[in-house]
Amino acid sequence: MKTLIRGGTVVNATGRHAADVLIDGETIAAVLAPGSTLLGFDVAANVDRVIDATDRYVIPGGIDAHTHMELPFGGTAASDTFETGTRAAAWGGTTTIVDFAVQRAGERVQDGLEAWHAKAAGNCAIDYGFHQIIGGVDVDSLAAMDSLLDEGVSSYKLFMAYPGVFYSDDAQILRAMQKAADIGLLTMMHAENGPAIDVLVEQLLAAGKTDPYFHGIARAWQMEEEATHRAIMLADLTGAPLYVVHVSAKQAVEQLAAARDRGRNVFGETCPQYLYLSLEEQLGAPGFEGAKWVCSTPLRSRAEGHQDHMWQGLRTNDLQMVSTDHCPFCMKGQKELGLGDFSKIPNGIGGVEHRLDLLYQGVVTGQLTLERWVEICCTTPARMFGMYGRKGVIAPGADGDVVVYDPRGHTSIGVGRTHHMNMDHSAWEGFEIDGHVDTVLSRGEVVVDDGQFLGRAGHGRYVRRELSQYLT
Amino acid sequence: MKTLIRGGTVVNATGRHAADVLIDGETIAAVLAPGSTLLGFDVAANVDRVIDATDRYVIPGGIDAHTHMELPFGGTAASDTFETGTRAAAWGGTTTIVDFAVQRAGERVQDGLEAWHAKAAGNCAIDYGFHQIIGGVDVDSLAAMDSLLDEGVSSYKLFMAYPGVFYSDDAQILRAMQKAADIGLLTMMHAENGPAIDVLVEQLLAAGKTDPYFHGIARAWQMEEEATHRAIMLADLTGAPLYVVHVSAKQAVEQLAAARDRGRNVFGETCPQYLYLSLEEQLGAPGFEGAKWVCSTPLRSRAEGHQDHMWQGLRTNDLQMVSTDHCPFCMKGQKELGLGDFSKIPNGIGGVEHRLDLLYQGVVTGQLTLERWVEICCTTPARMFGMYGRKGVIAPGADGDVVVYDPRGHTSIGVGRTHHMNMDHSAWEGFEIDGHVDTVLSRGEVVVDDGQFLGRAGHGRYVRRELSQYLT
Amino acid sequence: MKTLIRGGTVVNATGRHAADVLIDGETIAAVLAPGSTLLGFDVAANVDRVIDATDRYVIPGGIDAHTHMELPFGGTAASDTFETGTRAAAWGGTTTIVDFAVQRAGERVQDGLEAWHAKAAGNCAIDYGFHQIIGGVDVDSLAAMDSLLDEGVSSYKLFMAYPGVFYSDDAQILRAMQKAADIGLLTMMHAENGPAIDVLVEQLLAAGKTDPYFHGIARAWQMEEEATHRAIMLADLTGAPLYVVHVSAKQAVEQLAAARDRGRNVFGETCPQYLYLSLEEQLGAPGFEGAKWVCSTPLRSRAEGHQDHMWQGLRTNDLQMVSTDHCPFCMKGQKELGLGDFSKIPNGIGGVEHRLDLLYQGVVTGQLTLERWVEICCTTPARMFGMYGRKGVIAPGADGDVVVYDPRGHTSIGVGRTHHMNMDHSAWEGFEIDGHVDTVLSRGEVVVDDGQFLGRAGHGRYVRRELSQYLT
Amino acid sequence: MKTLIRGGTVVNATGRHAADVLIDGETIAAVLAPGSTLLGFDVAANVDRVIDATDRYVIPGGIDAHTHMELPFGGTAASDTFETGTRAAAWGGTTTIVDFAVQRAGERVQDGLEAWHAKAAGNCAIDYGFHQIIGGVDVDSLAAMDSLLDEGVSSYKLFMAYPGVFYSDDAQILRAMQKAADIGLLTMMHAENGPAIDVLVEQLLAAGKTDPYFHGIARAWQMEEEATHRAIMLADLTGAPLYVVHVSAKQAVEQLAAARDRGRNVFGETCPQYLYLSLEEQLGAPGFEGAKWVCSTPLRSRAEGHQDHMWQGLRTNDLQMVSTDHCPFCMKGQKELGLGDFSKIPNGIGGVEHRLDLLYQGVVTGQLTLERWVEICCTTPARMFGMYGRKGVIAPGADGDVVVYDPRGHTSIGVGRTHHMNMDHSAWEGFEIDGHVDTVLSRGEVVVDDGQFLGRAGHGRYVRRELSQYLT
Ligand SMILES: [Zn+2]
Ligand SMILES: [Zn+2]
Ligand SMILES: [Zn+2]
Ligand SMILES: [Zn+2]
Ligand SMILES: [Zn+2]
Ligand SMILES: [Zn+2]
Ligand SMILES: [Zn+2]
Ligand SMILES: [Zn+2]
Repeated sequence: MKTLIRGGTVVNATGRHAADVLIDGETIAAVLAPGSTLLGFDVAANVDRVIDATDRYVIPGGIDAHTHMELPFGGTAASDTFETGTRAAAWGGTTTIVDFAVQRAGERVQDGLEAWHAKAAGNCAIDYGFHQIIGGVDVDSLAAMDSLLDEGVSSYKLFMAYPGVFYSDDAQILRAMQKAADIGLLTMMHAENGPAIDVLVEQLLAAGKTDPYFHGIARAWQMEEEATHRAIMLADLTGAPLYVVHVSAKQAVEQLAAARDRGRNVFGETCPQYLYLSLEEQLGAPGFEGAKWVCSTPLRSRAEGHQDHMWQGLRTNDLQMVSTDHCPFCMKGQKELGLGDFSKIPNGIGGVEHRLDLLYQGVVTGQLTLERWVEICCTTPARMFGMYGRKGVIAPGADGDVVVYDPRGHTSIGVGRTHHMNMDHSAWEGFEIDGHVDTVLSRGEVVVDDGQFLGRAGHGRYVRRELSQYLT
Repeated sequence: MKTLIRGGTVVNATGRHAADVLIDGETIAAVLAPGSTLLGFDVAANVDRVIDATDRYVIPGGIDAHTHMELPFGGTAASDTFETGTRAAAWGGTTTIVDFAVQRAGERVQDGLEAWHAKAAGNCAIDYGFHQIIGGVDVDSLAAMDSLLDEGVSSYKLFMAYPGVFYSDDAQILRAMQKAADIGLLTMMHAENGPAIDVLVEQLLAAGKTDPYFHGIARAWQMEEEATHRAIMLADLTGAPLYVVHVSAKQAVEQLAAARDRGRNVFGETCPQYLYLSLEEQLGAPGFEGAKWVCSTPLRSRAEGHQDHMWQGLRTNDLQMVSTDHCPFCMKGQKELGLGDFSKIPNGIGGVEHRLDLLYQGVVTGQLTLERWVEICCTTPARMFGMYGRKGVIAPGADGDVVVYDPRGHTSIGVGRTHHMNMDHSAWEGFEIDGHVDTVLSRGEVVVDDGQFLGRAGHGRYVRRELSQYLT
Repeated sequence: MKTLIRGGTVVNATGRHAADVLIDGETIAAVLAPGSTLLGFDVAANVDRVIDATDRYVIPGGIDAHTHMELPFGGTAASDTFETGTRAAAWGGTTTIVDFAVQRAGERVQDGLEAWHAKAAGNCAIDYGFHQIIGGVDVDSLAAMDSLLDEGVSSYKLFMAYPGVFYSDDAQILRAMQKAADIGLLTMMHAENGPAIDVLVEQLLAAGKTDPYFHGIARAWQMEEEATHRAIMLADLTGAPLYVVHVSAKQAVEQLAAARDRGRNVFGETCPQYLYLSLEEQLGAPGFEGAKWVCSTPLRSRAEGHQDHMWQGLRTNDLQMVSTDHCPFCMKGQKELGLGDFSKIPNGIGGVEHRLDLLYQGVVTGQLTLERWVEICCTTPARMFGMYGRKGVIAPGADGDVVVYDPRGHTSIGVGRTHHMNMDHSAWEGFEIDGHVDTVLSRGEVVVDDGQFLGRAGHGRYVRRELSQYLT
Repeated sequence: MKTLIRGGTVVNATGRHAADVLIDGETIAAVLAPGSTLLGFDVAANVDRVIDATDRYVIPGGIDAHTHMELPFGGTAASDTFETGTRAAAWGGTTTIVDFAVQRAGERVQDGLEAWHAKAAGNCAIDYGFHQIIGGVDVDSLAAMDSLLDEGVSSYKLFMAYPGVFYSDDAQILRAMQKAADIGLLTMMHAENGPAIDVLVEQLLAAGKTDPYFHGIARAWQMEEEATHRAIMLADLTGAPLYVVHVSAKQAVEQLAAARDRGRNVFGETCPQYLYLSLEEQLGAPGFEGAKWVCSTPLRSRAEGHQDHMWQGLRTNDLQMVSTDHCPFCMKGQKELGLGDFSKIPNGIGGVEHRLDLLYQGVVTGQLTLERWVEICCTTPARMFGMYGRKGVIAPGADGDVVVYDPRGHTSIGVGRTHHMNMDHSAWEGFEIDGHVDTVLSRGEVVVDDGQFLGRAGHGRYVRRELSQYLT
C-alpha cells in the first residue's frame, strides 16, 4: 500500500513546510516538495491512495507516554481495556501509547511485564510500549532491571506516594536510581510525599471532611514540591536522569526549573487536566460530582495560579511533555466506591482521546506555538522514551504514523459527541476545540478518517524502545 | 543541476535519519529513504551529480548570525572584505552570514543599509543578510525602523557600550524597543555598561596598566551582568523580545536564565572564544600577544568558571546560539595601534571559518549532543532571524545549503593550514578538531569540496528575512 | 536636671526588661532594676522629676533618617521649616532627624552643607544631622567628599532619577562610589531609572493622561527593580556599601534580598506610605485628590502585592529601616501646580509626625514584633548612620532621648486631631492607632508630655555622625 | 554578695558602651555610666567586690544550646559528665548549656526527661536546660509533648537520620510538627536523609572503604540539602517554626536562605567545626586519625567552599547561632570502636570549652563584628530558646552571668594547655586565639578567674525555659 499525503503543511518541532509525504508500506519513503512529481516522475500516479491535505497540518502521530489501560486500582480496574483505550486514542490522533506494566512488592518484574504483554497483545488499534513500574524495589527487582532494555523497556517508574501499594522509600529509590544510572534507564517518578499525605487524609476523614474536594486538600502542593526536590537530589547523587510525571504544582515546576538551570538532567511532564481544570471548579463541584476529577497529583487551586504556571512551564521548556495519565473510571460502580470517603475514590481521569485537541486549543489561545504543540505531543515523547526516528517525526524511514489536522475544523467534546473511551461520563464534557483530527494513519494504514474508525484491534504492535535521547 | 547526496545520516535539531537528499536547482526537492529509488524510479540515475555521504553527517549549512566584514572601527577596518570573509565562511561550512549595516548618530538608516548592500553585492561566496545597527536613536532613525522589514531586515542592534560611538542611553533604548515591539523587530543588544567601563579604562591607563590584559579588567563581569539585567527590564517594560549578543559572563547567563524562567522572551548568543579562551591564558599572554584576543565583551577568567558556564548555558538552552562576532584585525598595522594603550586596540577576533568545527569539538568532548550542535549552529539562527524554511533545515523547499561533515576526519587550525581569513595570525592557532568539513553546497552549488574552493564571489545572494519565529 | 523614668518596660531591639531609667542632665546615667533603690540608696528621692511609666513601654527616641525640611523642589519648597517639622517630629516621638543638604551641578558641596546648617541652626526642637546630596558629581564635589566626615556627615545621596536636576549617570555614580568606598561613606541611592521614566512621562502627557494616577504608571516597578540592581552591581564593583532609599517595589526587595544572600553589604529603607497606601486607592483617588500622594518612588499596586511584601521585607531584614521621606506640600498653591500635568505636582508626602505610631500599628496587627519595631524605628537608624551609643538605645552614656509609649492609648490621625505638620491636609487622614506617645524626652528634657508640646526651637543640636556601624 | 564590674566596655548585640555593671546577689542590679558613682552615691564603696575590666569586653555569659553530656551512643557514652562538661564550659566563658534529654521508641518522654534531670542535678558548675529528643513519635509521646512547656522545655528535637535509633519518618515528623505548632514548641531538626545515607554506608563498607574519611563521603551534602528542604516544607505545611541543627553544607544554607526570603520562620545553627575544619584536612587525616573528627553532619570539603559559606551565613543571618554539638569521645576505647569500620566510630566532637574563643577569632580575622559575636554566642541562643531577659543580655534583672574578655590576651588550645574536657585528645589542638576569657561569673558568683576554676559542682541550676521569642 502506497499513500501520498498531498498539499498539506508538514509541521515539525522546529518549523513548518509545504510538503507532500509519501508512505510506502508501513514507512515514510519520502518528504517531497509539493507538486507530486519528482524529477519528472509522477508520484501521485504511482501510489494506491492520495490524501488531500490542502489547508491542513500534517503532523507526526501523537504519542501519549502515560496511560493505564486495565490498571487494577483500589479494588477495581481502569475501565478502558487496551482495545477500547487504544481505539479512543486513535480517534484523537494518538498513534502510540506507552503504558505501565506493574510489579508489586514480592512479585517478579518479568511476570509483571509478561502480564501486561498478555493484556495488550492482539488488542491494540495503535502501537504501544511499556514502562515498568517497580512497586517493590529489592534484590530481585533490581537484578531484573538489567534485562529491561533487552525487552524494549528503557524507562521505569517509582512512587514516592501510596505507601503499602507502590511506595518506595528513599533507600529503595537510591538503589534503583544507581542501577538506572548504570544501565541508562530513565527514572520516572510519582513525586508526592505519600507518608505525610496519608496522615492528612486520615485526619481529614476523622474530621468528617469526606468530600472529593478534600482529596485536593490532603495532597497539598507542599508535598509535591517536597518530593520533587527530594527526587532531584537523589538523582543528583546517583547521576540518574529523572522524569517527574504529572506535575501539577507551580512550586514543583520551580524546583525543576532550578535544577535545569544548574544543568541537571531532569524533566517534567504535565497533563491536560492540570492546564485546564482546578480544585475550586472541578474537584470542588457540588456533592459527589468532584469524584470525576479525583486523580493524583490533584487538580490545583486556580486562585494560586498553578494552571497558568503549567502553560508557562511548557513554553519555557521547564516542562517538556504533556501526557494524559489516562486512567478512566466510571462513576457508576467505580468512583462511587468513595462515596463518603474520598480516599476510596479510584484515582484517575480519562483523556487519551483528547490530548492533541486540548493542546491544540492552547495554540488557538496563544499559549503555544504550532511547532511547540507538535514538539510537546509528538516529538519530545519519542525522543524522551527512545522511539525517535520511527516515531515522533515526519521523515524518511519513520513509521507511517501521521495525522492530518484541520485548523478550520471544530470538535465538541462530550458523551454522545466525541467520546470513545469506556467511561460513563467525560472529564472534558463541554470543551470546544477550534480544530479537528481529520485523518489518522498508523504505520501506513488509515485508522481514522472523516469521522469513521477504520482500524482494528491487533493492528497495533509492541514498540521496543531504545535509550532516551536525553541521557547526555 | 540536480544533485543527490546519498548514503549519509541527515542530522537535524531533533534527531538523525539515514536519508538521501535530492537537490533540484537551488532547492531541496526531496528527502528520501536511502537507496536512491522511489516507487521504482531510479533517482540516482536521473541526477547530474551524486555525492557519496556514506558514514558522514549531512547537515544544513551553518548560519553565522553575527559578523562584521569591512567594519570601520577605531580608525581602521575589519580586515576581511565580504569577498574574503564569505569565502572563509564557506570553507568552514557556513553558507549564510548575517552582517551588520551601520547607522551612526546624525546619519540616515537608509544610507547605512544601502552602503552595506554596496559593499556586499556581487562579492559574496555565500548568502548574506543584514541586521541594522542603530547607533543614533532619534526621531528619524525611529521612523526609519518602520521600513526595515520591507528591506528584509527583521532585527536591529543597540549598544549599551561605546559612548560617543554606537552608545544608546536608556531613554533611547526604551524608545527603540517600543518601536520594535510594535513592528515585531528583534532587538539585539550589546550589553555592557559603557559609561562605567570607560571610567575604569581611563583609571587603568592613568595607572600605567596599558597591556591587553587590562582590557579584560576594565570590562568587568559586573558591568555585563548589570547591562544584561537592564536590557531585560527595558524589554519587559516595552514587551519587546530581546537577544543579547556575545554573552561571556556566567552572571549574565544567570540573568537570562532567571528571565526565561519567568517566561520572558529573552535570548542569548555566545561565541566560540567565550567557550574556549580565557583572560588568564590568551588575553594575559606575555607582552602584546594578548592583543590578538582583545574583543568586547572580553575573554573572562577561567578561574571564575565562565567558560564551563557557557557550555552549560548552551545545554540548558539559556543560551540559544553560537555566532562568531567575526571582526578580524591583523596584528601588523591594526592591533598594533594599541601598543602602550589597550583601549586603542581594535576590538575583534576572526572566527567565521571555524565556528562549525569548534562547536563540533564540543560534541566530541561530550559538551553537546550532535543534534544540539546542528540546532545551535544552523537551525536556531534561522528560526531566530526569520530565515527558517529556506535556511537552517534539510527539508523540501529549503535552499540547497548543505554540509557533508566527516566525523572521522581531522582539521588542524592555524595559519598555513586551515586559514582563509584575511588575517596575519589566527586566534585559534593550534586547535585540533576531530572532524572535517568535506563538502559544502550553497543553493545547490558545490562551493567547497575535498579541500578545494569551488565557489565564486557573487554567487551569494541577499536574504530577505521575515520576522523571528520566536516572537510569540 | 535629674529624671527617673520608673516602672516601665524598657524595650530594645533584642528584648524587653522591667527597668527604671535614670537621666542625669542630657545623658542616661543608669538603667536599674525596678524599685528605685540601688544598694539601699533611694534613687527616686534624689532626682528632680519622676516619670511614671507603669504599663508603658520605654523606648529610645525615634530616628527619622530621611526628611526634607524646606527643600526647594519644582518651583516651590517643602512646607515644613526645620522649626515646624522638628516640632511635629517630637509630637510623634521622633527625637532625631537626618535631613539632606543639597549640592547641585556647578555648586560647591561645602556651600550646600553650610546653607542647610543655616536653615536648621537655632530652629530645631530635636537633634538633627545631615546627609549630603551630591547632585553634581565632578572633580570638585568628589574632592569635597573627603571632608564630609570631618563635618559629621558620614553618608551622601545620589539620584538615578531626575535627569537635569539631581541625576548622576553611571560614570558619575562609579566615581562617587569609589571615593565613598575609600573613605567609608555610606552611599544612599534613589534607585529609579530616570531617563527611561522621563520618556514614559512625556508619552503619557502627550496621550492626555495627566491625572496623578499616571505618575504611578510612568514610574513603573521595572524601572525601580532595574535601578536597584544597577546600583547593587556598581556597589559590588567598587566595594562600596549601599543603602537604597524609599524602596516600594517588591521586585526591588527581591534584588536586595538576592544581594544580601550573597553577602553583599546592601541595605534598604521603606516608608510608611509603601506599607499602607496604594496606587489604586490613594494615587488613583478621583479627580486631583491623588496629588496628595504623589511621591517618588510612587505608591504601588495593591493587586500586585507590593505592600505585603514590604512588611515581609521588614520581617526578613531584607529591608532594615523605615524612614518617612518627609517632604510635605500643601494642596493649595503647591500640589495644585500639577493640575492638568502630573509631572508638575511637587513630589512628596508629609509623615515625620506619624512614623512611630504607624509602625506600632504593625505590631498591633502582628506584622512586626515589639522589638523589631524599636529596631526599625530607633536602633538600626542609629547604627546605620553612625549615631549608635548616643542615639538609638537606652543605655548609660546615651543621650536622654526617650519615649514613653502607651500600648493602651489611642491616636486618631488627621487634620484638627493629631496634625502638627505645616500642611493643609494629611496623607494619613483617618488612620487610627492603638497606641499613644505619652512623653518624649530629648537629651533629658521633656519636650512632649500629656498632649502638650513643652520643647522649644533651638533645643535641638546638630549631631556629628561617625561611620556607619555596618561597614564591615 | 555585691559585685561591681568596672571600667569595661559592655558589648551587646547592637553595640557597645563604656559602662559599669552592678550585680547584687544573683542578679544584675544596674548598668551604670562609668565612674562608679550614681547621683553622688559611691557604688564601688558599697559593694563586696570590684572587678577591674579596663580595656576588656564585658559580655553576657555564653550559651551553648547544643550539648550531649553523658549521651549513650553506639555502645558507649559521651565522655563528659555534666560535672566535667559544665566545668569545661565555664572555663570557656559559657554559663548556660542546653542539653538533650532522650526519649526512644517505646519509652516514655517523662522518663527520659527525668533521667536527664537525675544526671545533671547537683553536678553542674553552670546553669543548664533541656531540649527533649523525641526518638519515637507515637500517640504517647505526642501526648507527652503537651506537658513539656510546664517542665520548662520549650523545644524538642527530631532526627531525619539514624533509622532504627532516633529516626522519625515523614508521617511522624508531620504529626509532631502539628503538635508543636499547636503548643508553640520549637522543632529542632537533624536534617540528613538517613535511609539513603545508610545505603551509601553499606556500599562503601562493602567496597572496603572503611576509613574515617568515608564517613564524610557517605553523608553527602545532597542528603543534607534534601532533608533541610523536606523539613522546611513540612514546617510550611504545619505552620511550625523550624530550627535546623548543625548545618554544614552550603546548599543547606541556601535552602534556609530561600525559605527565609519568603518569610518562613526557619532558623539554622552551625558549629565551630563547620567553620574551621574540613573533609580533606581533618576527616581525611592519615590512618585512623580522622576518627577524632567523625561527627554528623560531617565535615565538608574545603574545595567546595562550605566553610566560607558558613561564615557568610552567619553574617547574612541565614544562620543565626553557633552551638558546639559537644559530644566528646576519647580515641582510646571509644573512637577506636570504629577501627576498620567508620560506621562504628562514635559520632561526636568535643568543643563546649572553646566556642566563645573560636568565634572571637572570627572577629579578629574580620569574619564577624564584635556585636555579631555576642549576638551569635549569647543573645540569640537566649531569644531562640526562651531564656532572654534572664540570660543573653547585660541588663537589670538579668542573671549575673557575665564574661570579662580580654582582646589583648591570648589562648593556646590543646591538651596540656587549655583543655578541661574529659577527652584524651583535642579536636582543636594547636588553635591559637587572639583573646582570652579572664573572668566568668555565673549568677553573680565568680566561677573562673585569672586561670583558676573557682566554681563548684551543684552551683548550676536548671533553667525553666519559656517559648522561643521568634515564634511570631
Ligand atoms: Zn502517578
Ligand atoms: Zn531555566
Ligand atoms: Zn499514572
Ligand atoms: Zn559584534
Ligand atoms: Zn527623599
Ligand atoms: Zn544531630
Ligand atoms: Zn535572604
Ligand atoms: Zn547533637
